[in-house]
Amino acid sequence: MRNWLLPEYIEDVLPAEAARIEQLRRRLLDLFRSHGYQLVIPPLMEYVESLMTGTGHDLDLATFKVVDQLTGRLMGVRADITPQTARIDAHMLNAQGVTRLCYAGSVARTQPDGLAQTREPLQVGAELYGHAGVESDIEIQRLLVKALQAAGVQDLHIDFSHVGIFGSLIGQGRVSDALEQQLYDVLQSKDQSALRALAVDLDADTREALCSLTELNGDISVLDAAARRLPATAEISQALQDLRQIGEQIASLGVQVSFDLAELRGYHYHSGTVFAAYAQGYAGPLALGGRYDEVGLAFGRARPATGFSLDMRGLVTALPPAVLARGIVAPQGSDAALLMKIDQLRAAGEIVIQELPGHAEHRAELDCDRELVLGEQGWQVVQIAAAGNAAAIL
Amino acid sequence: MRNWLLPEYIEDVLPAEAARIEQLRRRLLDLFRSHGYQLVIPPLMEYVESLMTGTGHDLDLATFKVVDQLTGRLMGVRADITPQTARIDAHMLNAQGVTRLCYAGSVARTQPDGLAQTREPLQVGAELYGHAGVESDIEIQRLLVKALQAAGVQDLHIDFSHVGIFGSLIGQGRVSDALEQQLYDVLQSKDQSALRALAVDLDADTREALCSLTELNGDISVLDAAARRLPATAEISQALQDLRQIGEQIASLGVQVSFDLAELRGYHYHSGTVFAAYAQGYAGPLALGGRYDEVGLAFGRARPATGFSLDMRGLVTALPPAVLARGIVAPQGSDAALLMKIDQLRAAGEIVIQELPGHAEHRAELDCDRELVLGEQGWQVVQIAAAGNAAAIL
Repeated sequence: MRNWLLPEYIEDVLPAEAARIEQLRRRLLDLFRSHGYQLVIPPLMEYVESLMTGTGHDLDLATFKVVDQLTGRLMGVRADITPQTARIDAHMLNAQGVTRLCYAGSVARTQPDGLAQTREPLQVGAELYGHAGVESDIEIQRLLVKALQAAGVQDLHIDFSHVGIFGSLIGQGRVSDALEQQLYDVLQSKDQSALRALAVDLDADTREALCSLTELNGDISVLDAAARRLPATAEISQALQDLRQIGEQIASLGVQVSFDLAELRGYHYHSGTVFAAYAQGYAGPLALGGRYDEVGLAFGRARPATGFSLDMRGLVTALPPAVLARGIVAPQGSDAALLMKIDQLRAAGEIVIQELPGHAEHRAELDCDRELVLGEQGWQVVQIAAAGNAAAIL
Repeated sequence: MRNWLLPEYIEDVLPAEAARIEQLRRRLLDLFRSHGYQLVIPPLMEYVESLMTGTGHDLDLATFKVVDQLTGRLMGVRADITPQTARIDAHMLNAQGVTRLCYAGSVARTQPDGLAQTREPLQVGAELYGHAGVESDIEIQRLLVKALQAAGVQDLHIDFSHVGIFGSLIGQGRVSDALEQQLYDVLQSKDQSALRALAVDLDADTREALCSLTELNGDISVLDAAARRLPATAEISQALQDLRQIGEQIASLGVQVSFDLAELRGYHYHSGTVFAAYAQGYAGPLALGGRYDEVGLAFGRARPATGFSLDMRGLVTALPPAVLARGIVAPQGSDAALLMKIDQLRAAGEIVIQELPGHAEHRAELDCDRELVLGEQGWQVVQIAAAGNAAAIL
């Protein structure tokens, strides 16, 4: 048994990548803070009932379960922080107006997923509760764009959809729950002939509208086509109007915008606009988000909600690696002037490593390019001399 | 069923406390970095064999277990990050000289423990691998003192012991494993009469020395008493000499220092000096640490090791609450000058919240003390007027 072997799709983050992730984490949380999003730290584990609330079957399968030794009840290791944040908004904070929350933490999944193909995404996200209009969707989407730009992501592209369009067609066509699920499944694979076969008993308007969804993808002109080809129910008209406003606002930030009205990711969870961010160098979406007004209902207090989240492990896959700062090596000893100089350098942001006895031969491992030496002017930082070169005082 | 009820001893961290914890987290990680300790992010879950390696029964009982659906093997949610760091040192980094690592993350425990009586401590720590001398113990203890001082802890007090003293007496007295465990248990309760009864069949020197351990606690004079009352084995002499050097160095930092030679916390895990930090306002130790040279052996690569860790949830219990910065409220709209002014304020560290339509009545919830208004000089930040007072331009 090799005790040090990790499970598949579970990995250590070593110093170079950890430094990069820590830098991103701070940058994103600072950005969220400056927009009024307050940090919360929900627990790693909760009763499964609250973890699963409003989130559907997929999250249940993804969640590791354990028995609570104190109560005998089933707890889960969170697979998603968003429902926890909705619970905090609904019951812990209890605001009447708008609440803005953000978070950063590990989640666990029974199967690998996402860009990093990991079972332990490092989830970061921002959520806005208490406002139902398109303005809060746009605020969240703008924040996502700024977050990814702050992370150094290039050639950002956001794809939008609206789950209310499919929902309205289902309602108009009086579709049974079982058929709704089947239609949903074939729409995800954009299989128009399977869709047509499934929809054969529906009225012609609903059938044609459902089939047209598989073709309604592309740039903003898709919204004009959708207005012609879909029934003008109040819900569909509002959805198309919201998507147009969102598309124009987000395109104005220099981001490529597209629409795919057959995209129903998180249909059982989401309730309005949904979006996915893509960028150069990434094989899949690097952030996901959308509106999920119904989730709080299961916590006894329905609140409009919109937000996004991303996995920092996925985000760093296509970013250049961090360059770790090199340090200054200082000699052993507790000479007061030496210790004061070391403290000053550290307070100024330098890495100073005081040598330990018997380790001179491994000095190169310390990754220091400078050293502290006692000269006529006291303790001074000098470049570590390459073989044959004299040391230079910095 | 109230879906939003959390399990006992598991809590959400809400914005005011989360801001405090995030501030501490950054301060501690920055301090560790400046001392050459590199951040690593070990996984939340691993196979139980590697999580338990070298750590003994207590950690096993504290660890939540789940079945890995990919392999059918048992995984655990980490209850301690230190053994994970030892695994990373032994197998991932593979340095020959000294490795300095630090970490910050959640751990889960089946039962509440520690200052915060929580089942989810937020563990932060620093570990030094590859150096066996007292100098690395002192480096780690100095770092702990700086960390707690940076956190704002007052009247710091560190209590030292050395598990090698008890170990040497056990070896000298040829004590059986079963009796060793019993002696260890009664020493923890400092029950001298029970100790004397248990030790009745041991040689008189070992018995008297074991009994004297319960009395050897107090200031640095304890070390003189220990030198008189304990047998002068090489191991005990070295332990007392190390403790003296440590005590003098740490006392010179303005910290109160004490010794308790019956304290054997983590005896099955630790191998040398152990310590616990106490402070005004805290009911128990707020940080624990010590030497644990043998742990890496189970990973196939024994390396000298010393370090400390603390729970940030415990640490904040006696610190003054964070005062959340108040923000600036800005009107709705995408006027270019307005958006530019908002971006400037945010980049300067301000919190700016753009109002959403229909929420004027809940403005007070936003916790803003200033607002952006359009004046003759363009967009300006003004104090939000209390009823009856005129607004003042800032």
